[in-house]
Amino acid sequence: MLKKEVTLGIDIGGTNTKVGIVDRDGECLANSVMATRAEEPIEFFLPRLYHTIDAMVSPFLESINILGIGIGAPNANFYTGLIEQPANLKWADKTPLAKLVEDNYKIPVKLTNDAKAAAIGEMKFGVAKGMKNFMVLTLGTGLGSGIVVNGEVVYGADGYAGEFGHVIVNANGRTCGGGRRGCLEAYVSATGICRTVYKLLADYPDPSELRDIPFHELSAEMITESALRGDKIALEAFEYTGRIFGMKLADLVAILSPEAIILFGGLTRSKELLFEPTRKYMEEYMFPIFRNKIKLLASGLEGANTAVLGASALMWNELDKTKV
Amino acid sequence: MLKKEVTLGIDIGGTNTKVGIVDRDGECLANSVMATRAEEPIEFFLPRLYHTIDAMVSPFLESINILGIGIGAPNANFYTGLIEQPANLKWADKTPLAKLVEDNYKIPVKLTNDAKAAAIGEMKFGVAKGMKNFMVLTLGTGLGSGIVVNGEVVYGADGYAGEFGHVIVNANGRTCGGGRRGCLEAYVSATGICRTVYKLLADYPDPSELRDIPFHELSAEMITESALRGDKIALEAFEYTGRIFGMKLADLVAILSPEAIILFGGLTRSKELLFEPTRKYMEEYMFPIFRNKIKLLASGLEGANTAVLGASALMWNELDKTKV
Repeated sequence: MLKKEVTLGIDIGGTNTKVGIVDRDGECLANSVMATRAEEPIEFFLPRLYHTIDAMVSPFLESINILGIGIGAPNANFYTGLIEQPANLKWADKTPLAKLVEDNYKIPVKLTNDAKAAAIGEMKFGVAKGMKNFMVLTLGTGLGSGIVVNGEVVYGADGYAGEFGHVIVNANGRTCGGGRRGCLEAYVSATGICRTVYKLLADYPDPSELRDIPFHELSAEMITESALRGDKIALEAFEYTGRIFGMKLADLVAILSPEAIILFGGLTRSKELLFEPTRKYMEEYMFPIFRNKIKLLASGLEGANTAVLGASALMWNELDKTKV
Repeated sequence: MLKKEVTLGIDIGGTNTKVGIVDRDGECLANSVMATRAEEPIEFFLPRLYHTIDAMVSPFLESINILGIGIGAPNANFYTGLIEQPANLKWADKTPLAKLVEDNYKIPVKLTNDAKAAAIGEMKFGVAKGMKNFMVLTLGTGLGSGIVVNGEVVYGADGYAGEFGHVIVNANGRTCGGGRRGCLEAYVSATGICRTVYKLLADYPDPSELRDIPFHELSAEMITESALRGDKIALEAFEYTGRIFGMKLADLVAILSPEAIILFGGLTRSKELLFEPTRKYMEEYMFPIFRNKIKLLASGLEGANTAVLGASALMWNELDKTKV
């Protein structure tokens, strides 16, 4: 029997690590999940990862041919295969994760961060099929970006291109981390919109159900629900977020002239509450030659296996390159 | 005798149009210049252009083999070969310039705008030799940009990527054109720094030799000369310009992680007066992982034939692509 060609996708998050077997069409044959245990060193993590993968793969051993492994992980460098100074993982400053996994399985392994993996995922399997110039923005705890230009992911000179979450909205604005002020992700992310709600509660006297919620219990989901119930402060928080986001997207468009901007991640579950003001202000602030040309799209990969699909797509993309 | 392979470079400016014969090493064998006469229709411009080219080429007819023509021009679209709605030329809304010249000479013709031509010029013949990720910013009357990612010029989905002069510094800031507010080029350009001097003369009571100069007579060169004589307002104008420029360059670095940023054009003749504050603020506002990595360079093509070299490099670059 001819074995089916597949790649493995691994997505390492701060809480969970997901793995999956993905074929060339983006079908997920199987998947599994384990706790990342961010406080553990890599020496404890890897045996658990291999065990999880082997258990998932074993029923398929006769029927699949694993061509390679793609990994999406925080602070991952595609060029070097290193995880460098991961803020949320107790690993060494420079962990050669790609090489470690490659040495174990003796098949090609490629590594990149989650937003770049998502961009490749959209290009291979999602709404960016056939597009050569687009970007994926992931709106979760922070704001990540994966940019594609001329059909290739932008890694830049050092592998760290795509830090769109750290463009500056206001040099005297909200603190971000490491003493920085006014980064976009301090405004436009699941945590950013919570900060905006508190700012608005301070600025305006309007009644709001959000006045009953302590800061540390507030979530983007709660703001979405309040907005859907017509809460003025919650609605204004989306307007405020969309104005800042739209203005910075207009800058991104002026620089790169993409065909589409694809939004992904927790905050996008608020759907048109976020999309409508973002689109409106993006068009308003946009340089006229780009107006009414740029598609603002929701991810085509939403679902349980999204991150695994992206990681797998990273390896499919590499395999396609070598085919020529 | 084996004929020398060359391309022609044509640079169409608002005032002058320059042409040159350039070999594969970026040596300019000959060049010529004619008035553009922006008020004339294209039907008058083209015969004069052909005459200028033919007169320049005729002494070399026995010794050169012209492989193609590259043209740098305002509002030029590489994808379509059109000049679209040129603000400073009395041509039709859409002039198929590449095709018109190609039909006349029966050799390949490529077209792009001046900043993108400059980027290719730096990559082939200037300080960006061997670089895969960099950008050239042209600081003249306006601010243009040519961006290279993964070794290729970024044209974007529609050919108009690289409008870095129109990212927004301040949504309520200086008017730019067409009702827009706060575009970068309203601050960082030869005209932008003149506006800054007038703002500073209004804001501060300090004595300045620039108080004697009417707005319409003020030039970037005069501000440079005043600054070199220690004039406080002129020096502060460069500091103000460098702060805004540095902050927006930090954004560009976060997005694209270039190896170098190359500055070009009239305002850069002020040298360290501009470079020093720009570098200082770029580093200050930069996301930490990029600090002390990005080279801020002066063009390696400065001189009379710069724009012609860039236009010629555009065609050399195309010829190299087809060689494989």
